Amino acid sequence: LQDRALLTLAPLLYVAWSDGSLTESEVHRIRQRLSHQGDDVQKILDQWLNPSSPPSPSQLYKLLEMMRAANRGHEKKRFKSLAEFGRFLGRAPDGQSAADDDATPELRALQEVEAALGVVGTEALRAIIGGPDGIVHPQAGPLPNLDALRSFVDAERADIRRLVFKVLERPEFDRSTIKDFDDYRQRTLEWCRMLAQMGIGGYGYPEEYDGEGNIPKSITAFETIAFFDLSLLVKFGVHFGLFGGSVYQLGTKKHHDAYLRDIASLKLPGCFAMTETGHGSNVRDIQTVASYDVGTREFIINSPSRAAWKDYIGNAAQHGRMATVFAQLEVNGEQHGVHAFLVRLRDEQGMVLPGITIEDNGRKIGLNGVDNGRIGFKDVRIPRENLLNRFGDVSAEGKYSSDIPSAGRRFFTMIGTLVAGRISIAAASVSAAKLGLTISTRYASKRRQFGPEGGAEVPILTYRTVQKRLLPFIARTYALDFAIQDAVRLFKNPDLESKELEIRAAALKAMASRHAVDSLQYARELCGGKGYMWENRLGELRADTDIFTTFEGANPVLMQLVAKGLLTDLREQFEEMRVRAVLRHLTVRASTAVAELNPVITRKTDVDHLRDPEFHLNALKYREARLLHTVAGRIRRMIGDGRDSFDAINDVQDHLVKLAEAYGERIALESFQDRVHRAQNDSVRASMTSLCGLYALACIEADRAWFMESGYIEPGKSKAIRRELSEACVRQASAALTYVDGWGIPDRYAPALGE
Amino acid sequence: LQDRALLTLAPLLYVAWSDGSLTESEVHRIRQRLSHQGDDVQKILDQWLNPSSPPSPSQLYKLLEMMRAANRGHEKKRFKSLAEFGRFLGRAPDGQSAADDDATPELRALQEVEAALGVVGTEALRAIIGGPDGIVHPQAGPLPNLDALRSFVDAERADIRRLVFKVLERPEFDRSTIKDFDDYRQRTLEWCRMLAQMGIGGYGYPEEYDGEGNIPKSITAFETIAFFDLSLLVKFGVHFGLFGGSVYQLGTKKHHDAYLRDIASLKLPGCFAMTETGHGSNVRDIQTVASYDVGTREFIINSPSRAAWKDYIGNAAQHGRMATVFAQLEVNGEQHGVHAFLVRLRDEQGMVLPGITIEDNGRKIGLNGVDNGRIGFKDVRIPRENLLNRFGDVSAEGKYSSDIPSAGRRFFTMIGTLVAGRISIAAASVSAAKLGLTISTRYASKRRQFGPEGGAEVPILTYRTVQKRLLPFIARTYALDFAIQDAVRLFKNPDLESKELEIRAAALKAMASRHAVDSLQYARELCGGKGYMWENRLGELRADTDIFTTFEGANPVLMQLVAKGLLTDLREQFEEMRVRAVLRHLTVRASTAVAELNPVITRKTDVDHLRDPEFHLNALKYREARLLHTVAGRIRRMIGDGRDSFDAINDVQDHLVKLAEAYGERIALESFQDRVHRAQNDSVRASMTSLCGLYALACIEADRAWFMESGYIEPGKSKAIRRELSEACVRQASAALTYVDGWGIPDRYAPALGE
Repeated sequence: LQDRALLTLAPLLYVAWSDGSLTESEVHRIRQRLSHQGDDVQKILDQWLNPSSPPSPSQLYKLLEMMRAANRGHEKKRFKSLAEFGRFLGRAPDGQSAADDDATPELRALQEVEAALGVVGTEALRAIIGGPDGIVHPQAGPLPNLDALRSFVDAERADIRRLVFKVLERPEFDRSTIKDFDDYRQRTLEWCRMLAQMGIGGYGYPEEYDGEGNIPKSITAFETIAFFDLSLLVKFGVHFGLFGGSVYQLGTKKHHDAYLRDIASLKLPGCFAMTETGHGSNVRDIQTVASYDVGTREFIINSPSRAAWKDYIGNAAQHGRMATVFAQLEVNGEQHGVHAFLVRLRDEQGMVLPGITIEDNGRKIGLNGVDNGRIGFKDVRIPRENLLNRFGDVSAEGKYSSDIPSAGRRFFTMIGTLVAGRISIAAASVSAAKLGLTISTRYASKRRQFGPEGGAEVPILTYRTVQKRLLPFIARTYALDFAIQDAVRLFKNPDLESKELEIRAAALKAMASRHAVDSLQYARELCGGKGYMWENRLGELRADTDIFTTFEGANPVLMQLVAKGLLTDLREQFEEMRVRAVLRHLTVRASTAVAELNPVITRKTDVDHLRDPEFHLNALKYREARLLHTVAGRIRRMIGDGRDSFDAINDVQDHLVKLAEAYGERIALESFQDRVHRAQNDSVRASMTSLCGLYALACIEADRAWFMESGYIEPGKSKAIRRELSEACVRQASAALTYVDGWGIPDRYAPALGE
Repeated sequence: LQDRALLTLAPLLYVAWSDGSLTESEVHRIRQRLSHQGDDVQKILDQWLNPSSPPSPSQLYKLLEMMRAANRGHEKKRFKSLAEFGRFLGRAPDGQSAADDDATPELRALQEVEAALGVVGTEALRAIIGGPDGIVHPQAGPLPNLDALRSFVDAERADIRRLVFKVLERPEFDRSTIKDFDDYRQRTLEWCRMLAQMGIGGYGYPEEYDGEGNIPKSITAFETIAFFDLSLLVKFGVHFGLFGGSVYQLGTKKHHDAYLRDIASLKLPGCFAMTETGHGSNVRDIQTVASYDVGTREFIINSPSRAAWKDYIGNAAQHGRMATVFAQLEVNGEQHGVHAFLVRLRDEQGMVLPGITIEDNGRKIGLNGVDNGRIGFKDVRIPRENLLNRFGDVSAEGKYSSDIPSAGRRFFTMIGTLVAGRISIAAASVSAAKLGLTISTRYASKRRQFGPEGGAEVPILTYRTVQKRLLPFIARTYALDFAIQDAVRLFKNPDLESKELEIRAAALKAMASRHAVDSLQYARELCGGKGYMWENRLGELRADTDIFTTFEGANPVLMQLVAKGLLTDLREQFEEMRVRAVLRHLTVRASTAVAELNPVITRKTDVDHLRDPEFHLNALKYREARLLHTVAGRIRRMIGDGRDSFDAINDVQDHLVKLAEAYGERIALESFQDRVHRAQNDSVRASMTSLCGLYALACIEADRAWFMESGYIEPGKSKAIRRELSEACVRQASAALTYVDGWGIPDRYAPALGE
């Protein structure tokens, strides 16, 4: 009987001790939960749960032997928990356990102990009954079929990818022959011309202007160029995307007729002159002025101060002939807010025009193929027609008109047209991350360092520290890629004013650019000295993408834009003290909390649950909802206390940023899960289910402190999540090479870091 | 009576709702704790604690007014908790509270509620009774006297700093005139020569060889050079530190006599040829061979394969004349492990000698003033005397002898002499972080973006998101600086075999180089587009320091070295199954756990406690001890299960890394606290006490998930820590400029990012 009791407890005792050691308080909790069990159980606990005299290795080994003996012949039987396994081992000799139902108090007590220990039940079981050597052999994740994985990843992008890669294979696209700084700028321009000749620049423009009216296609082309050279990417984006896009989105037919064809062919190289030295992200307060002269029917453009010069403008230092210039519109001394104007910078011979001063930004940390510069305006006169007048116009007589009466809304509508640029940068960030992770994963699978005493050295991909950092980066890259593809699909609706798209674009741009910088930094470090050599691309990729966190809207600003979007213009509501909307939020929250904070779930630690996509999505949804409702409550309180709304928003700034991050991670998980759900190939679905789970667990694990603080998980469950993630990384490490190969990056862009 | 009860509860209710909103489960917990209170209390709770109908802003404002009225005339009274304040407000009209002692059950119940809410008691109080506007005005931290702060920071370094800065002020040290890649290498060499002429290179060598026998002084000089140019730093370090240091540390008098003077004067530029293409951090397995030829009494040096070439060797591509070459010593076919040999690379005219092939590593991500290269050896013969024979020698007749019988210990003793290099890199990393944080903090205090409706734009340093990231970086820089100074002081003992110093050096190198990369990345992003311009140094600083995480021992390898050091060579003990040492660890742990996991402390959230240096240090000590003991237990278990020790170590690799991080953060806190304790100036002591607390809280906050999982803090306390840290950052933001000025970096190295 004593032996049977010991066998029942054995799996728990074994796992409890095998995972490091037990604290006094853990022992106390276990004993408390088992205090109603019989004397024999208490005796065993006295012997085995004394923290000042833990069992010796050989005692534990004997326990293992006992369990194996009792389990012999039943190796294929599966158990949901250690408790269940223990009950099976301790079953009566007749072979049938007295009670096989799940409801015995004994079983429940054991399961509680298991949950309190934060033990990943069946994983640990596998170690115990796995093999005669008692060694945990992490099961390799299912390897997906590579071709199937590639079509799964690229989906509708495949054809455009192929086409662009084909063009980039031409001998002219050879980075190795770049001579110096000046040559790099020149070559980047020539590359742009070649892409224009192939019609690649105009994919997004309407067919009547030599385009294809297909923004998703233009974004795919853009992100594909990223594998080749990021200076080309940015110069291409500045001209075709920002300059051309602003003419298309902010202009009207007369502008399209006059310019779009020349823009698509790069006959008219252009700039996008929005940012000013003194005003980076705060576009609403730029100081360049465009005042209407009713006498000559012209606008006069001026930079009233040095801080009002346009700065960091791509294409400005050397090649731009025209610029879309954002300026405060003034008519008859009346202010109408920021508008965009077409201003010629250089003549046909490339000479800078009178009234315009251009300075070269010179050498930058990266992207040195792009000629960034500063532009100052002094009494530069442009015809009235050069106002891009889709959202606001000035008549010849100097009357201002707009379909959007509110100046604030007008501004945000104009800015909203930038959304394609943001999504493009997000997509290019993912390309850069893919490239860096491909290079470094391949290196890690070959590079050998250290090894067992007397044995050969092992690939560094075998190291736990490597697996646990590399796999989450790979998984997150997949998630972001799918989320961006989903956002891009929203462009099929040509109406770009979609609030939803704007929020998604901002969140994904911030998240993906951060991810690119972080993963490239890790990739560099993983490749050690090799990664530091210039020719191996990692340093260049990182230096080039670094500014992605800043341009097209600095990340912290974008994150707040996201959060404010989620608060559905709550700020305005606060100013008007419309409290009802806030209360509605709070009521929704209260019901969410009830549904979610079920103690059974906050403690649940079995593997099935931890790997359950529903658990993953619920956790990320809960976090987002709760962050939204609590921040709404905080702002409400402060406004109620008479705080200025700017102050109140500043006070909760990091709460807002956290909300935006939570939103971004949630939509990325939804995209990933949705894509996995629709996978046709079994091997792809199986492996991608695992990788998607890894992504989700990595999100939860990284923020598990918050989940504990909010009561969504208990510390035992937090530990279990940590372990499950860790084991998922180990299990899937053998698939890492296939995962990165799934991105289909041609070898010429991902050089093997050889001798 | 009803009003008195409401007043008693008012502070708690107000703070509970003002901080976002309450969850159903929080409400449940509060009500449970107060369930024994009278009917009037229950009525109030019914009214005020209904999550589906939270109090309106105006209701809460009335509550505030009530409290202020009850408190009028007592504004200066201080309370330790909201509960105490509530009791005071609800006191009987006679003005005297019935029971003023701390032990009433009522007070205890309220205090429990407060702890469960994770409320920072007195901070919140300040908001309530602070001023008539009800606005929290974060108290600015005490501003330290700048001169006093500078002498506090530099301490004994001040004179050497001044001297080196003086030299670097000479017109020859002008980076702006560097023409190109080749010129940069040449200039770096010339700068080294000038430093040598001033005797700065030889500070660490004995006086009889034109040195000063003062390693701390040499490290101070080194870290000061970092402010000027990091290529110079590295070239200087390679020659004087690694090459010269290896001759001094691994050689004997004959080598000192022959070379040290020429090394100190840079007459003999040298290399340190340890790393091989195929073996980065795994020095023990390098493949270069030095076999003794008894006939000619020479060693023959060979690179048996391409992977055995020495790689990334500084000074090799152009300027090195001699190298300390690490190779496997073979005598009569017998292997004696890695030894160091002096090998001439080039003749007096700079021509590469026969048998030696040198390739240029070419352009790197950074440090392009250093001429790194690869070296291959083919039958290169060197005299027997060129073996650096301090720890092992070969007689003319080919007999090997050593004072250290174990080959393993001999190897680690040799490697241990590198400790000065590691500490130097740690110190230089801190210099780079100081420089980047100085540039970006100054920028953030001037750069204005956004602002209240209709008001002026505000400096970005006013933003919470900026404060909450910048201040912890500054605080950690201070902590690391002091910890490194403390480690450097250990060199006063010329015996460099100190195990303690080795562990400290490895931990601080890994921690500081990581910190440099992270803080420079943040500094760049904080400075936006300005930070991306090459001339503003941030990009260069980051690119240059990036490899600091890899060279002188890759960080992940060093972290494991630290952890293994802390496990006091446990691996060897495991191999021999000496379990007793492990058990000793576990017993110590058990007693620690009992002392620490007192529920009063795991829940304690008053400000005095959260700011208590003792709490900070205890938390970091507890974490380190527990990580050490649990990892020991895990390894023990796996070895007991018959796992190979290499496998076992790999399995707990991230546990080991975490242990090393915990160790590093703890020793840095001890150094910081100790220094603060000895501060003479009151304003310095006050402000540094705050900054030291900020550092400690940032460490705890970043790892609060672990602290919760281990039961050291409860979720309510975790929230309180998060808030206290956040408020500390806000409070000290106004001191940020003074903190960075305290580092005393001349303005010429920290350019204002102007127009």
